[in-house]
Amino acid sequence: MTTTTAPDAAALTPPGLAERAAALDAADPLARYRDRFVPSPGLVAYLDGNSLGRPLRATRERLSGFVDDLWASRLIRAWDEGWMDAPTELGDTIGRVTLGAGPGQTVVADSTTVMLYKLARAAVGARPGRDEIVADTENFPTDRFVLEGIAAERGMTIRWIEPDPARGVTVDDVAGVVSERTALVLLSHVAFKSAFIADMPAITRVVHDAGALVLWDLCHAAGAVPVELDACGVDLAVGCTYKFLNGGPGAPAFGYVARELQGHLRQPVQGWMGAAEPFAMGPAYEPAAGIRQFISGTPPVVGMLPMRDMLALLEEAGMAAVRAKSIALTEFVIEAADQHLAPLGVRVASPRDAAVRGSHVTLEHPAFREATALLWRWGVIPDFRPPAGMRIGLSPLSTSFTEVARGLALVAEALRDPGV
Amino acid sequence: MTTTTAPDAAALTPPGLAERAAALDAADPLARYRDRFVPSPGLVAYLDGNSLGRPLRATRERLSGFVDDLWASRLIRAWDEGWMDAPTELGDTIGRVTLGAGPGQTVVADSTTVMLYKLARAAVGARPGRDEIVADTENFPTDRFVLEGIAAERGMTIRWIEPDPARGVTVDDVAGVVSERTALVLLSHVAFKSAFIADMPAITRVVHDAGALVLWDLCHAAGAVPVELDACGVDLAVGCTYKFLNGGPGAPAFGYVARELQGHLRQPVQGWMGAAEPFAMGPAYEPAAGIRQFISGTPPVVGMLPMRDMLALLEEAGMAAVRAKSIALTEFVIEAADQHLAPLGVRVASPRDAAVRGSHVTLEHPAFREATALLWRWGVIPDFRPPAGMRIGLSPLSTSFTEVARGLALVAEALRDPGV
Repeated sequence: MTTTTAPDAAALTPPGLAERAAALDAADPLARYRDRFVPSPGLVAYLDGNSLGRPLRATRERLSGFVDDLWASRLIRAWDEGWMDAPTELGDTIGRVTLGAGPGQTVVADSTTVMLYKLARAAVGARPGRDEIVADTENFPTDRFVLEGIAAERGMTIRWIEPDPARGVTVDDVAGVVSERTALVLLSHVAFKSAFIADMPAITRVVHDAGALVLWDLCHAAGAVPVELDACGVDLAVGCTYKFLNGGPGAPAFGYVARELQGHLRQPVQGWMGAAEPFAMGPAYEPAAGIRQFISGTPPVVGMLPMRDMLALLEEAGMAAVRAKSIALTEFVIEAADQHLAPLGVRVASPRDAAVRGSHVTLEHPAFREATALLWRWGVIPDFRPPAGMRIGLSPLSTSFTEVARGLALVAEALRDPGV
Repeated sequence: MTTTTAPDAAALTPPGLAERAAALDAADPLARYRDRFVPSPGLVAYLDGNSLGRPLRATRERLSGFVDDLWASRLIRAWDEGWMDAPTELGDTIGRVTLGAGPGQTVVADSTTVMLYKLARAAVGARPGRDEIVADTENFPTDRFVLEGIAAERGMTIRWIEPDPARGVTVDDVAGVVSERTALVLLSHVAFKSAFIADMPAITRVVHDAGALVLWDLCHAAGAVPVELDACGVDLAVGCTYKFLNGGPGAPAFGYVARELQGHLRQPVQGWMGAAEPFAMGPAYEPAAGIRQFISGTPPVVGMLPMRDMLALLEEAGMAAVRAKSIALTEFVIEAADQHLAPLGVRVASPRDAAVRGSHVTLEHPAFREATALLWRWGVIPDFRPPAGMRIGLSPLSTSFTEVARGLALVAEALRDPGV
């Protein structure tokens, strides 16, 4: 029979693991930031910050304050007082805090899927005569689906890399498929399944040597794994703001277009907010100069509010410290899994080298689908990705080592549950 | 010298107009709903509900409650507990309350611009061999810009109707351009400049007789002018939720696809949320059955919150009563303009027949650009549309006749201002 009342996580945590977690928490220079987040009643361990970041207390105040102080008070006047510039102002902030991107190259708009479509279409349009797109079979479904659609409508072919799941997409994988036929290469910086970090500088060079453009998906990097888009000479990037940027469910995406490319690319969804003069109401579309062209519709002002609080917190803590804690947390998960979960048949499916590992650890076990359902009822929240992966996502500023230790203790308990 | 402190609007309102407004307010069966909206300090008259609806008090509570009770408490579990279905559940509500659309045909997603792109692309793809799109030069810029882009990428031609601004697009205008070459006709139901209401049933028939598809832009109708999409046999529609549906700045759009067409259309932005099984993470895109295919990315959950309150209020008040008050308000504006603004050179540019007039009245005067800037500082908020139009937008549930009378009194005062 399945245990439905939550077991006592503290009591079930192996004493050695609990002590080690307590010591790591005591030495954690970022520990004080955990109090900035809204408490979650009944929560034992939130291990899915890589899917949906937790809300900050400041966000609660920001949302209700927004209704009174801006929406109700300034009404449409607020468009001239900040809302119109929010996509680029917030884009610049994301660029500065997490992307290594100078101003004027990043914009917040649309869903990740729509932004991927727009930038991928713009890229293939800028390489006429080239009829191939390179992607990998382990990338997130929406990335693959968007490219399938574009390839079909443009009469192009997708060259699929089939990466070794344990190593992710390598420089050699890319070098083996790019050619003078390649228009675009789309890859994830941090793999959504394994958390493998691809070699952005080297792969970007290989793509450029072939005369193609590269589009990096930063969904599982932004806010946890610092990148240096400008220094790497990256052409295009997209990313998600509701994971490690805590923008709330379905918060809009960001898109990056390197400054020197902006005048050479045209995105397909021509809207008034990407026009040179949105309120001129002119007869024909004239794209705005710079990054603004990549906006289509009215900026999603309400949806852009929560991420501001996390961006401020990340800037306060510093991305180097955030990355250091992310590594410490993933190391701790691997250490605990080896010691306490391996005997139950659990395998670590993420890289063991922290230098090529993002901010989650994927564990594998044939019973993880059922175990995850049980854990959710117990207040331990990882997520499950078919066929057998449990992702332990570690959002550095909101996660403690003790929380992780207790969560993993209940993972073991779930695997021992007769109903699983 | 320009007067920068707000004049006394009550004192400046002509006594006859003030009395008439007071009588109309006293007899208004919807007057009690005004108290449901968040007060705006310093506001004399909000005359732009057709651009951005005011927030409801309930929305303030909903937003902060959302952070604690759903986002922080349920975390990713909430995706299975309602968030995933929000686009179609909310779409069904919009369909029922304002569109005359049965369930399973309306979805909330994206910006209006992106939704227009997706549905227009789907439509032209469903009419292979036809190489013309019909549109009108008076339509909103984003509608025209989206079509320009699609025509360029598909090698199609746009046949532009140049409507008489005083009458809008007529059945004869459409009949004169559609042919066996027409794939799609895109028109606004309520014209954004003049508020002219196009004849949806008759135009839809003419388009169908030519074998083409019709896409109606309902941005200036939804929530103020009831439509009957199912009864009219409309193929496709898009609309805005931040105007008369009070969804907050940049709230996501809605899209309608008639049930019998859904299996025959394919939209171009293929994303995981429009796939048959989003979490199967399968190798190739397989579109979901029904309206869900028209979703691309992750639902913008936070941005979808505020519109729920206005939809509930509209359902409580009833769209017939809302339309009746909308007509009474626009009649009152025309009556007041004829009496008090015409002597200052102001012309009514909207239809005088209420049956073909939406929920705003456009007035014209060469000095309205400067007058609008001054009025905004005085707490009277219409908007300005080039070259000389001031739109007086009347959101029936949040606007009183007295507010309108005072606002128009200050319009007259602004025109008398030596700085204007």
